[in-house]
Amino acid sequence: MAGKKIRLAELVVLVQGELVGDPELLISGVADFDSAGEGEITFVADLKRGARLDECKGSAIIVPLAVTEISGSAIRVKNPYLAVARIHALFVEEPFVATGVDARAVVGDDCHIPAEVAISPLVFIGNRVHLGQRVTLHPGVVVYDDAVIGDDVVLYANVTIGRGCRIGNRVIIHSGAVIGSDGFGYATDGNGHHLKRPQVGVVQIDDDVEIGANTCIDRATFGRTWVKRGTKIDNLVQLGHNVVIGEDALLVAQVGMAGSTTTGNNVVIGGQVGLGGHIHLGDRVMIAAKSGVHNNLEPGSIVAGIPAIPHKNWLRASAAYAKLPDMVREMRELKKKVAELSRAMTPGRDDSPGNDA
Amino acid sequence: MAGKKIRLAELVVLVQGELVGDPELLISGVADFDSAGEGEITFVADLKRGARLDECKGSAIIVPLAVTEISGSAIRVKNPYLAVARIHALFVEEPFVATGVDARAVVGDDCHIPAEVAISPLVFIGNRVHLGQRVTLHPGVVVYDDAVIGDDVVLYANVTIGRGCRIGNRVIIHSGAVIGSDGFGYATDGNGHHLKRPQVGVVQIDDDVEIGANTCIDRATFGRTWVKRGTKIDNLVQLGHNVVIGEDALLVAQVGMAGSTTTGNNVVIGGQVGLGGHIHLGDRVMIAAKSGVHNNLEPGSIVAGIPAIPHKNWLRASAAYAKLPDMVREMRELKKKVAELSRAMTPGRDDSPGNDA
Amino acid sequence: MAGKKIRLAELVVLVQGELVGDPELLISGVADFDSAGEGEITFVADLKRGARLDECKGSAIIVPLAVTEISGSAIRVKNPYLAVARIHALFVEEPFVATGVDARAVVGDDCHIPAEVAISPLVFIGNRVHLGQRVTLHPGVVVYDDAVIGDDVVLYANVTIGRGCRIGNRVIIHSGAVIGSDGFGYATDGNGHHLKRPQVGVVQIDDDVEIGANTCIDRATFGRTWVKRGTKIDNLVQLGHNVVIGEDALLVAQVGMAGSTTTGNNVVIGGQVGLGGHIHLGDRVMIAAKSGVHNNLEPGSIVAGIPAIPHKNWLRASAAYAKLPDMVREMRELKKKVAELSRAMTPGRDDSPGNDA
Repeated sequence: MAGKKIRLAELVVLVQGELVGDPELLISGVADFDSAGEGEITFVADLKRGARLDECKGSAIIVPLAVTEISGSAIRVKNPYLAVARIHALFVEEPFVATGVDARAVVGDDCHIPAEVAISPLVFIGNRVHLGQRVTLHPGVVVYDDAVIGDDVVLYANVTIGRGCRIGNRVIIHSGAVIGSDGFGYATDGNGHHLKRPQVGVVQIDDDVEIGANTCIDRATFGRTWVKRGTKIDNLVQLGHNVVIGEDALLVAQVGMAGSTTTGNNVVIGGQVGLGGHIHLGDRVMIAAKSGVHNNLEPGSIVAGIPAIPHKNWLRASAAYAKLPDMVREMRELKKKVAELSRAMTPGRDDSPGNDA
Repeated sequence: MAGKKIRLAELVVLVQGELVGDPELLISGVADFDSAGEGEITFVADLKRGARLDECKGSAIIVPLAVTEISGSAIRVKNPYLAVARIHALFVEEPFVATGVDARAVVGDDCHIPAEVAISPLVFIGNRVHLGQRVTLHPGVVVYDDAVIGDDVVLYANVTIGRGCRIGNRVIIHSGAVIGSDGFGYATDGNGHHLKRPQVGVVQIDDDVEIGANTCIDRATFGRTWVKRGTKIDNLVQLGHNVVIGEDALLVAQVGMAGSTTTGNNVVIGGQVGLGGHIHLGDRVMIAAKSGVHNNLEPGSIVAGIPAIPHKNWLRASAAYAKLPDMVREMRELKKKVAELSRAMTPGRDDSPGNDA
Repeated sequence: MAGKKIRLAELVVLVQGELVGDPELLISGVADFDSAGEGEITFVADLKRGARLDECKGSAIIVPLAVTEISGSAIRVKNPYLAVARIHALFVEEPFVATGVDARAVVGDDCHIPAEVAISPLVFIGNRVHLGQRVTLHPGVVVYDDAVIGDDVVLYANVTIGRGCRIGNRVIIHSGAVIGSDGFGYATDGNGHHLKRPQVGVVQIDDDVEIGANTCIDRATFGRTWVKRGTKIDNLVQLGHNVVIGEDALLVAQVGMAGSTTTGNNVVIGGQVGLGGHIHLGDRVMIAAKSGVHNNLEPGSIVAGIPAIPHKNWLRASAAYAKLPDMVREMRELKKKVAELSRAMTPGRDDSPGNDA
């Protein structure tokens, strides 16, 4: 990373942007708007957020196409976030350094471990484990028997991969995540005792998935719990047995999904959302943070609330909720007024003894 | 597991079911409906779920008593889930293999460790720890000083058992769970600084409890936090100091219970439920997922919502919630109509200048 | 701890209380009301909780100033919780025992490690790590390269401190907590693929912070995620990238805060609360358990609900919510009654064919 210098013109090509200013400018890194300095490129995603371009101390800036008045060097792009992600990745990427298997790691029998790996001290690898090329296992990682790990996988400290689980290529799993714990499955007998149902399936994580710290993904009762290509899962998420998450999904922190629930591709599930078991979310479903979903959702649905309803409706319902005390009062007044009108319409009746309608 | 073959008649006896077909049929394993093949037994819990018996490729099937038209071999039972749990357990159970204490484990002073245990490499056991017979400690497990672990306990990778905590017999604790972290207890001084209250109690886990991955159970301030016999706790659950959970409870993932809350037996608490401190749930209370409970609940209560109300009422209230925007509109119209009626009833008055009631 | 005996008069001075009874009484420890025995001091925080002073078996008792009728020895104080915290801390505090670096720990290159530390077996310390005086690292702790740990810090089993993160003095972090995992930041391309944005910032934890078991605090995208002095965080909490928590805050279990959200000092956030990204909570904000906050909150705000509204309003709104089904019925009846009145006011019209208004 240190010392890497790239011409602005090259970065423009990388992000398919439009160059403003000096193509020969040498860029040495990426920084955020407030801290960018000499030689660094920074970005503004949205001028409305209040950044003032003339306050930028960096040498170049990535801006949305809409920005036209630029004094220094810049790259104009459709999606600044995407451009900065690509450029930043270029600067921070480091060549894989194969350190092999540290002598203080513990490795079982009949494993397949290429020469090009980096296995830290205090790692535990069971029997018949298959590791791909350039796998990095940090200290405290435990890989159980018969697990299969793809190429270029990084498992951070204290990650657990359960017996027989399969991890694809370029998967990143953060510290403390548990892949392949038993599903929560019991049968209750006549005395109210819960008998454990054996959980003999596995977890399969496909290519390019990232999984957050202390997230738990349970193994299937039978078959597999499955997270498909490109999906990104935040910290402290819970996926029950036999859950299937489609491709390119985003699951924000502390989401919980009960057993056998499945999703299409490109779903976005907000933080702390809970999903019941045995339901299906169609492609591109979006669920607002803290919602509770108990039913299937059509592709493209945008929902919120407990239980979840269409998001537009929820916005109005929750606004009305805050005014419920007023509504209760108005209802009381209205009832009174109607009763008065009613009495006024039926002369004499309102004077009858004992009438308190 | 491999190679085990059991006569269908024996399985019938095990589950106290009714035999249909060939008692001598040899069964070699259990599978789910879609993947069951030659020699395997499978099950349908409920014909309404759409399984069609004639599509079954397994050699035998477990069905509810209600099913009478069966072409092949089968076991008819009252509770198929229970039967399959019993039969499956029979097939997957393996004899305990005592591997002793691995040389790469770390064991403190004055511990009691029977010969018949399986202590993995990279396990840490403190001083004066007492292990029961046939205890299995997976890599990364940390058992602090003075802890007591019962017979036939399995602690998966990276589980922590805090100082002085007591774990019963046949307890299973999944990876990353933390038993005996300090309770969240502070006293706030006049400057708003929070002074830590020492947490000197322990956690006691009774027989046949199962605890999910990355679940946290805090030690008591004084005395004990206590999970009683047969209770099953899912992943990422939080139990505060001095919580007491009765027997045979089910706590689904991401439940949180504040300090000193207690429950009777056979409670069922849905995913992501939050419970306030110092309350009591009676026997057989059921709480719907995502609810928030702040008050004591009578035995047998079934509740939902934040704050929780009777479940039946919640179903109707939440349905009404979705229609609140309509209700607001109707209320407005009704007010208008009543005002009109009112004006009509008091002739002359509605023509007064400035009257807009 | 064992054997420590302190005169009651000394304890009175420590907590600036009023002595009742024998100043020379020797106290040997603290216990809760029900279990306190000979030589122990106990407390009642609030007489309304039902404790009866005459049932106390302890040798002395800490009581609120309001309590005047006391038969035995006692300390009268303004805040019993605070007094018992101070006194209890005095009894349980033990001198730091420097055991040095265990030979079964793994330590990288160019670290600064004082002689006065206690580094357990199976600890992993990366390169260029700086440890303060009297640091205690429990088994399974992983400290990545370039981290800085202050004086008198205790990291319990399996805690992870990410690369370059900074931990202040007297910080306590409980088992399984992950400090410095990558923030959840992606840019989505035109095909719906999520490109990882490098997370190159750090986490900074200031003095006297305590962090609960399995809590996750993500590193900043740029700059730092920051928890300021004296803040206490419970178990299973999630703090996103670039979050800033002010001083002396309390975050109860399972709170989740999205990226770039910041708070003032002395905020109190209840269990399972979720906070959206890029918002600010003023000083002394209090948020009820299970709430969802999407907007800035003024200093001193007390809020509840999803979305959060003023707590007083929420109490009335949630009470009304439970009665929504009644309200729906009343609305229907009222509409009917108004329609009847309306018909009665316009004679003849209600008999028109097809009129069902």
